[in-house]
Amino acid sequence: MSATHLLIIAHGSRRAASNDEVRRLAERVSAQRPPGIAHVEVAFLELAEPDIPAGLARCAEGGAGEIVVFPYFLAAGTHVVGDIPEAVDAFRAAHPHVRVRLTPHLGASETLPRAILDVALAASG
Amino acid sequence: MSATHLLIIAHGSRRAASNDEVRRLAERVSAQRPPGIAHVEVAFLELAEPDIPAGLARCAEGGAGEIVVFPYFLAAGTHVVGDIPEAVDAFRAAHPHVRVRLTPHLGASETLPRAILDVALAASG
Repeated sequence: MSATHLLIIAHGSRRAASNDEVRRLAERVSAQRPPGIAHVEVAFLELAEPDIPAGLARCAEGGAGEIVVFPYFLAAGTHVVGDIPEAVDAFRAAHPHVRVRLTPHLGASETLPRAILDVALAASG
Repeated sequence: MSATHLLIIAHGSRRAASNDEVRRLAERVSAQRPPGIAHVEVAFLELAEPDIPAGLARCAEGGAGEIVVFPYFLAAGTHVVGDIPEAVDAFRAAHPHVRVRLTPHLGASETLPRAILDVALAASG
């Protein structure tokens, strides 16, 4: 059985604190020790390192047989619809032995409404 | 018992499709019929309507005794740290009979890592 890595793709910011916030989020995801995910990585579309090709390559070099790519974006803009799928396709063409699955972006993910409600209900009352 | 309304605050975009995506998200939250939340509203920091004061006023006019304000932002930038708390404070001063609770922004919310993992695990395998 080959390992599955999760690659969280964020936009990237000129503010180092924002990029660090994404890296901390990846650590929080990893800290949940999800049974099906061997490793959690972060990549940035621009303005921060690693970029998407480097993030995908890091997963492959780390032994991933499958990479789940999660676009950490709120809206289905050009980056989600164009840039990220293109980067994934380029990686697939160069690494046919690695399975890459691209999930819906955060704003469209099925689990988001429940997560928002959990926050709201924790604050309420 | 007074009603609790959830106000989702997004940045707002020049792209109408992005603003509509937030409105659809609010509908998806509302569709879960959360027991403690009577109503779900959306407001935008800029570039779209209603703005934050108008969104808070709409909740109050709709009979909210409590408003849970959820910043739909990934990073703790100026908007999350400054603009939104200031707008909430101004509303509180003008409406002392309405309780307003400001939650952590999406990027810092405790439920986000689990939500991301649920997406990743659904895609994997």
